[in-house]
Amino acid sequence: MTNDIEKLYAEIQKGNENIIAQAISMVEDGTKNGLKLMKKIYKNVEPAYMVGISGPPGSGKSTLTQRIVQLWRKQNKKVGIIAIDPTSHFSGGALLGDRVRMNEISTDPNVFIRSMATRGSLGGLNSSIYDTVLIFSLAGFDYIIIETVGVGQNEIDIVKLADTTVFVTVPEAGDEIQAYKAGLMEVGDIFVVNKSDRPNSQQMVLTIEQLVSFKDEDKEWKPPVISTNALKNKGISDIKDWITKHHDYLLDNKLLKENRKQVIKAQMINLMEKTLNEKYIKPILEDEKFPEHIEQIYDKKKDPYSTVEELMPFD
Amino acid sequence: MTNDIEKLYAEIQKGNENIIAQAISMVEDGTKNGLKLMKKIYKNVEPAYMVGISGPPGSGKSTLTQRIVQLWRKQNKKVGIIAIDPTSHFSGGALLGDRVRMNEISTDPNVFIRSMATRGSLGGLNSSIYDTVLIFSLAGFDYIIIETVGVGQNEIDIVKLADTTVFVTVPEAGDEIQAYKAGLMEVGDIFVVNKSDRPNSQQMVLTIEQLVSFKDEDKEWKPPVISTNALKNKGISDIKDWITKHHDYLLDNKLLKENRKQVIKAQMINLMEKTLNEKYIKPILEDEKFPEHIEQIYDKKKDPYSTVEELMPFD
Repeated sequence: MTNDIEKLYAEIQKGNENIIAQAISMVEDGTKNGLKLMKKIYKNVEPAYMVGISGPPGSGKSTLTQRIVQLWRKQNKKVGIIAIDPTSHFSGGALLGDRVRMNEISTDPNVFIRSMATRGSLGGLNSSIYDTVLIFSLAGFDYIIIETVGVGQNEIDIVKLADTTVFVTVPEAGDEIQAYKAGLMEVGDIFVVNKSDRPNSQQMVLTIEQLVSFKDEDKEWKPPVISTNALKNKGISDIKDWITKHHDYLLDNKLLKENRKQVIKAQMINLMEKTLNEKYIKPILEDEKFPEHIEQIYDKKKDPYSTVEELMPFD
Repeated sequence: MTNDIEKLYAEIQKGNENIIAQAISMVEDGTKNGLKLMKKIYKNVEPAYMVGISGPPGSGKSTLTQRIVQLWRKQNKKVGIIAIDPTSHFSGGALLGDRVRMNEISTDPNVFIRSMATRGSLGGLNSSIYDTVLIFSLAGFDYIIIETVGVGQNEIDIVKLADTTVFVTVPEAGDEIQAYKAGLMEVGDIFVVNKSDRPNSQQMVLTIEQLVSFKDEDKEWKPPVISTNALKNKGISDIKDWITKHHDYLLDNKLLKENRKQVIKAQMINLMEKTLNEKYIKPILEDEKFPEHIEQIYDKKKDPYSTVEELMPFD
């Protein structure tokens, strides 16, 4: 692994796949050179357009992602995909999954797929996700897809980083879609009801149309609800066109800048959490006395609230 | 709202529904009395048996939960349900949802349902979730169900608090179940394939059986895979029986104690994160100079890594 930052930077810029993969690992591992590299990239690189794709498992997101990427490839666009796996850092799960799921595009040299964990090694949202967006951007990718496999609060926060968020669901999601109401409204710029050949597909489109009709009535953007069948390649170009329309909308209304500032804020919070974990929580957990605290709390000799007050005696 | 901790404690113990609801709100809001109450509860109350129910949206978890609760009610058991919604704290979404979804049991005075957000007000896992478990335990509930609507890393961490975790899926989840492989192995003590009337149901049972057969071969517990149809009330008593079997297994192998210690550790980490957020991150975000930092980073005059180093000058 090369340690010369300038050389790393230049090789990433050339699109050297091995170096891109190495650079992401350096950043994920929190190495000093990874940090130096990111400081340089941050000041010199404009992030490429980010598209978030989210939705419940089984909704066919990976197939849909592949199809959209194939359309972009016909326009000669380069695409980076960050696939977020809902596996914990500790089980080391987020390394292989997605190349398998996206086998139709994974051999294309102009498509780069990287799987990442939701969390960083010290808890908190994984700040390496946005670092990876920037590394891909330096490498000249035109679009970056952030796909989350899980559907939880962390995953919603991650796709919110994206400029355009596509929320995918299926006709069957029925009742429970109601439970997502608030989350949906927050997150979706474009809604997709995939597997349109199944029963109740049109009903689901209507349900979502109704839910999103209440969304921020003062905003000009009315999220479209698109019916697709990814396996049969139906409706995919509609999604691609709506992504372009949403991009134009953001530019016309100077909202892209606002979104990018939100991303910077989120990234800073992630970095602050990481710093605090490293400085305060990690040493406490690694202290040989920590298991004794747990033992005493288990035995009801003390409680966790007082113990934390004692371990973190801030004013 | 009463401020006398002894009186609050006594009323919760009597099962006074209004006071239970008040106490949970006090804890969620982080009031001083809420903290005092929790310190007292922690030292005096043994947590009731916790059952986590997790799975993708549309898998029918709420219906399944209702049916299991109805079986426990026939045995005159009292049940507390904590329904975790994947809505952000900021949108205030987690207040109404689940009484609607569980209308068959929500009027039963021996069943108490509380919806909560994944995150606390200051980010990090919501430490009030386990506080609520303890309040329910003081109130004499025999079982506490923690149901997560989302399927993400946070949600997996929450159900892992439970003594027995039931992972629900549906025949269609097909390919993407593979993506969950690592998460599944970590999380599930009992697997349920719901909606057994649908095609490929038996195939899905076999797929999961295969996945879990690799799980911790040295452990004695082999997670069962149960086929159910919650709407038609098929297979529910199997789930109930397996929960009892898993409880016995934990007791026989002294694993319940280990799990409870893990819960204490997780709760302490949550509390430490909350403390650090309050002490360090909140003041930075609320400082009037913070938007300037964002502006300068956006303009590429500085980068977020150096800015965080400057804002948190720890050695």
